[in-house]
Amino acid sequence: MAGGSGTRFWPASRRHHPKQFLALGGARSLLRQTAERVVGSVVDWDHLVVVTGAAHAAHAQKELPELPTANLLVEPVGRNTAPCIGYASWLLAKRDPAARLAVLPADHFISDVSAFREHLEAALEAATSRLVLLGLVPSRPETGYGYIQTGAPAASARGMQIREVKRFVEKPNRETAEGYLHEGSYLWNGGMFVFPVAVMEQEIRTHLPALASGLDTLMEDASALERIYPTLPSVSIDYGVMEKAAGVTVLPASFPWSDVGSWDAALEIDAPDARGNVEKGDALLIGSERSFVDARSGRFVALVGVRDLIVVDSPDALLVVQRGHSQDVKKVVEALEKSQREELL
Amino acid sequence: MAGGSGTRFWPASRRHHPKQFLALGGARSLLRQTAERVVGSVVDWDHLVVVTGAAHAAHAQKELPELPTANLLVEPVGRNTAPCIGYASWLLAKRDPAARLAVLPADHFISDVSAFREHLEAALEAATSRLVLLGLVPSRPETGYGYIQTGAPAASARGMQIREVKRFVEKPNRETAEGYLHEGSYLWNGGMFVFPVAVMEQEIRTHLPALASGLDTLMEDASALERIYPTLPSVSIDYGVMEKAAGVTVLPASFPWSDVGSWDAALEIDAPDARGNVEKGDALLIGSERSFVDARSGRFVALVGVRDLIVVDSPDALLVVQRGHSQDVKKVVEALEKSQREELL
Repeated sequence: MAGGSGTRFWPASRRHHPKQFLALGGARSLLRQTAERVVGSVVDWDHLVVVTGAAHAAHAQKELPELPTANLLVEPVGRNTAPCIGYASWLLAKRDPAARLAVLPADHFISDVSAFREHLEAALEAATSRLVLLGLVPSRPETGYGYIQTGAPAASARGMQIREVKRFVEKPNRETAEGYLHEGSYLWNGGMFVFPVAVMEQEIRTHLPALASGLDTLMEDASALERIYPTLPSVSIDYGVMEKAAGVTVLPASFPWSDVGSWDAALEIDAPDARGNVEKGDALLIGSERSFVDARSGRFVALVGVRDLIVVDSPDALLVVQRGHSQDVKKVVEALEKSQREELL
Repeated sequence: MAGGSGTRFWPASRRHHPKQFLALGGARSLLRQTAERVVGSVVDWDHLVVVTGAAHAAHAQKELPELPTANLLVEPVGRNTAPCIGYASWLLAKRDPAARLAVLPADHFISDVSAFREHLEAALEAATSRLVLLGLVPSRPETGYGYIQTGAPAASARGMQIREVKRFVEKPNRETAEGYLHEGSYLWNGGMFVFPVAVMEQEIRTHLPALASGLDTLMEDASALERIYPTLPSVSIDYGVMEKAAGVTVLPASFPWSDVGSWDAALEIDAPDARGNVEKGDALLIGSERSFVDARSGRFVALVGVRDLIVVDSPDALLVVQRGHSQDVKKVVEALEKSQREELL
């Protein structure tokens, strides 16, 4: 899933250049990193399918030149995750009715690739006839993620235990998140899951019949995409399917994971130097600590005597944000929208 | 005096664009502000003389299009202030042997122009046969300026008392500066002074005979400038003349004055908004306080959640410095010199 057009990484991310195309936590884009986590080990390029928006299709193809053109699914408009995943499931069912599909967001960061692969392989092995989520074992009382409460053991694969999903819970407040962390049966919902396409098809037919009907029409006439897709119900896979489906399971996964939700999060996934600084591009830090500078737009950036600062340069705009305040970057984008400064969005 | 090529205002100031050409504390350059403080009131354009370096002559002429070409004195090389002031004195003595000359650095900031003019007029009135400095009444134990210790009353003009200069003292340490402030007889040496050109000529003949001799040669043959000027003794007017001359006097002046020695000082001369911020150009400050942003190079600059920060954008380089650390900006320039990044100097 390489849709989305987040504003939290402005000015590096823009409408035409969303987060999945940013090189965060490495030299390559998050999209490329996501592909390389699975291609060559779990699957080959013929079995990687990328779903993205019309505005980003050319960019995605450029990032992934090895991807067969037929495996790049282009949404004419974004309709949330259920149509996206449904569309891929319907198409793959046509290619191979026994196919299993792993849904992976293209804008997350995972440092321990082999641990990730082991868990993904286990989930694929267990997903013969059910939905299997990858749930992240929480390391802190995070209030920015949804949680999955686990229930009884359901299966095991590659020595790992898969459990029933008791319930999905929305982003908690701090106190609740601390309770979840202490209680031990709650996992972060990272939006990664695995299923046989036939199972997903059945679940969508049951819980989202309008979506199923639209996708059926699409399969009969691919040229109807532009007409049909915008009419599909705009609903998330969590709300539309996962929370209602029977027998959903989850594999607790302990590899480090980040949805890289802000510049603060981006700073945390990079390896800092001895003074806690992360420098990218043509930067010079003097007497500065715990700071992040992205000067890859080509200009020289000098930081003097600063602490806990995030500086992101771009050809036409510059952001300077104190660590811990990067949630407010969206206020900059809102102000630019309000003043109709399209060139900066 | 519009020489000098300071590095403390990098990246706004560069070798080809030193501090006197920066618009600090107003919409116009410090050079233009300096000219406008006296032209039209104290003198007319015919009686303003600007001394600058060869590299900056065209720029100075552009800043001051009203200045007669004959009043722009161009030093082939900088030789400190004694040759600069001597050169002007010799030339003006040829025009009018009875002329009085006021020496004013072109890179200082004075907000109260009428108070400045009153003091300057008084000093000119008193300078019939002696050197009269303008000494600033200190408002804090500043360690960045030289001081002048005053002695007995020497004269009065326009209701203001002029005193003898007891001694000049170098930049003091903190404790000494506090002593000066408490003691009450010490003034800041702001490098502004007034004298009859005949008096300066005599003092230079007495204390800097080699300079006098070189200037005599120059007056006989203006075409010798390129050859003679580089051979003049490189010495400051303070060390070469002021500290040795007899009967030097000082007019204590109480108008606010700043030599704008750093970005920290620049921030202090601008009027901040209610949150203590100063914004120039295309800037947006969100949740930010006591910060200064100069975005006049044309790019959009957003500050989020920052405190006490100075951000200066330029087309090819960006500076972010914590307030109180702007003395270290010179370290950036030194690093650029060391790595021979001429394009950024």
